[in-house]
Amino acid sequence: MAEKQVSGTTDGKPIRCRAAVARAPGEPLVIEEVMVAPPKAHEVRIKIICTSLCYSDITFWKMKDPPGSFPRIFGHEAIGMVESVGDSVDEVTEGDIVIPQFLAQCRECAVCTSNKSNLCAKFPFEMSLWMHRDRTSRFTDLKGQTLHHFLFISAFSEYTVVDITHITKLDAEIPPNRACLLSCGVSTGVGAAWRAANVDEDSTVAIFGLGVIGLAVAEGARLRGAKQIIGVDTNTEKYEIGKTFGITDFVNPTNCQDKSLAEVINEMTDGGADYCFECVGLTNLMHEAFACCRKGWGKTIVLGVEKPGTQLSLNSLVILHSGKTLMGSLFGGFKPKTDIPVLAKSYMDRELQLDDFVTHEMKFDDINRAFNLLMEGKCLRCVIWMDK
Amino acid sequence: MAEKQVSGTTDGKPIRCRAAVARAPGEPLVIEEVMVAPPKAHEVRIKIICTSLCYSDITFWKMKDPPGSFPRIFGHEAIGMVESVGDSVDEVTEGDIVIPQFLAQCRECAVCTSNKSNLCAKFPFEMSLWMHRDRTSRFTDLKGQTLHHFLFISAFSEYTVVDITHITKLDAEIPPNRACLLSCGVSTGVGAAWRAANVDEDSTVAIFGLGVIGLAVAEGARLRGAKQIIGVDTNTEKYEIGKTFGITDFVNPTNCQDKSLAEVINEMTDGGADYCFECVGLTNLMHEAFACCRKGWGKTIVLGVEKPGTQLSLNSLVILHSGKTLMGSLFGGFKPKTDIPVLAKSYMDRELQLDDFVTHEMKFDDINRAFNLLMEGKCLRCVIWMDK
Repeated sequence: MAEKQVSGTTDGKPIRCRAAVARAPGEPLVIEEVMVAPPKAHEVRIKIICTSLCYSDITFWKMKDPPGSFPRIFGHEAIGMVESVGDSVDEVTEGDIVIPQFLAQCRECAVCTSNKSNLCAKFPFEMSLWMHRDRTSRFTDLKGQTLHHFLFISAFSEYTVVDITHITKLDAEIPPNRACLLSCGVSTGVGAAWRAANVDEDSTVAIFGLGVIGLAVAEGARLRGAKQIIGVDTNTEKYEIGKTFGITDFVNPTNCQDKSLAEVINEMTDGGADYCFECVGLTNLMHEAFACCRKGWGKTIVLGVEKPGTQLSLNSLVILHSGKTLMGSLFGGFKPKTDIPVLAKSYMDRELQLDDFVTHEMKFDDINRAFNLLMEGKCLRCVIWMDK
Repeated sequence: MAEKQVSGTTDGKPIRCRAAVARAPGEPLVIEEVMVAPPKAHEVRIKIICTSLCYSDITFWKMKDPPGSFPRIFGHEAIGMVESVGDSVDEVTEGDIVIPQFLAQCRECAVCTSNKSNLCAKFPFEMSLWMHRDRTSRFTDLKGQTLHHFLFISAFSEYTVVDITHITKLDAEIPPNRACLLSCGVSTGVGAAWRAANVDEDSTVAIFGLGVIGLAVAEGARLRGAKQIIGVDTNTEKYEIGKTFGITDFVNPTNCQDKSLAEVINEMTDGGADYCFECVGLTNLMHEAFACCRKGWGKTIVLGVEKPGTQLSLNSLVILHSGKTLMGSLFGGFKPKTDIPVLAKSYMDRELQLDDFVTHEMKFDDINRAFNLLMEGKCLRCVIWMDK
């Protein structure tokens, strides 16, 4: 449908195209026509090629209270082609292949110019309903109602508008149904192993939750030469797929009998894992992770998204006496524009594995089936082709 | 009194000498004669020259429930001379000047032979009532009752027995009334700045609580070239003494008016301090410290000792989204045998300041007055000369 309106005629004009609109919490997305405004200054309008479903889409789609909000266009793992650019954009041009990412990198602020952090100070991460600069939406439905953005991306639309600070240009040669995974989940996991934790050779790693992020942590740890990578998941089937990404041992917490999960992992690692990663978003798992990271130098990295307001409670004397570190990480500590191309090259060089993360591919019309598959734990990544 | 029994005649025999015995929680210490058994294998009997009072002595002296225990000989900051050694001790010999320290360094275990941590795995830190190896006491009173040890040191006695892993040999030239401060408090603070936090040049630092540990953190940060060192204390008089150790700014939390302490420090540092140190041992201050360390890379280091069982509760999404790190540190991350001599040299080279930490000196008989001074906040360190 949108095709008819492209080819030079759309520049500076709204585009009418199809999008999967979330109208109410937990209800199936509705594929309908929407209007996508042209990009303003520092913005880029992108024709989405592929998008994949990440669990955060589901979390916010189910959310009845703020920051849940409707109507909204979800989707934040994607790859696309630049359709047009607003004023002051010289980093990309029409026809470029780009990956949008939820974390901004302005390249100018004190954080972006330092090596200490990836949390851009000029455009800080937030659960916004809008574009990052002017806090308005680029989407309306055909009745004129504003549709909210999600994570500054909103990829479940044939076209979307993204701020230039949220875009990374890639070489066109990488297959789009693999590259889109670098937009969020895989980068977050690999980054957590490489940047946030800085996993070293011969170390021991425990990963709580073997979804895509957890498996990508394993993949990152495998590439760093960790000697023991313990996967923890209530679904024992995850062990087989985990082996592909370097999982050497597996624990199903429902089979720990009279021991706590932390006790089991402390025994397996002879005193605790050097690095623990919580990839589910449950404070009790964060507790277990902190309890079984090695005394003296163990690091616990929180990657999972808990419900807003949930408190993690730690014994203050244990913090003092254990020498353990607790930290969180967004996007694994990676700076998107700097690190996504490195990961893309690593994939093209046959080092980083991406293929096995993609368990399903389907057309845009089937997007609600992708939601069901992910919720049922039956897929890792489902890639949606917008044109098919 | 003990003098009469030394000079070669005591080797291998019990020594009868004076000690300040804590008989009941919160009650004045009783200076009485005790018997100090000879050192067993791997142990050293030390004639204490100077000891200084640290707040942990008071905390445990007041403690009615375990790990509080009585009768006990407190004291863990000290310097002394080796009186005799047990079997298998070749690191020190009679007449050597040594500093006892509560943290062991066996030099053999996986931790001691690594650079990752100072928490010796062979002789782990614990709140023990005994010697580290055979879990018995070397002290009895004249009625034959066992007296408990404290932090493996028990320096409030003319003679004490300490495991060789808890002893650091020093050059004899350093003044004992300065060197004893390296036994615990000053090393903990400087180590926290140098090792645990790794404070860098031109950074911003906030220190919660300007006792000796907090001031020593400032001193460590000053020596590292931090550009802004904010002291936080309810006693405004601490600002003046703090300046000596590099404090550049001061906040009295009772004068924050309608703002939270974290808000005030966030404003002063334009977005949060690079490093926050909690040196009091209050979970609400740990909260404030975590809240005002800089988003992206801020580190909060817990040095204060809270009541056992007290929980620090942190918002799990803040952990995830802030990129901040929380960690604790014992002895500031310093390895005692490795780092105490470095600090002693730094003092002798007129770099590290120790003199101004010593606000009072007194004789052993006045030890209860030292307790009162420290509890009333009227002294930093009170050095007690055992021979005077």
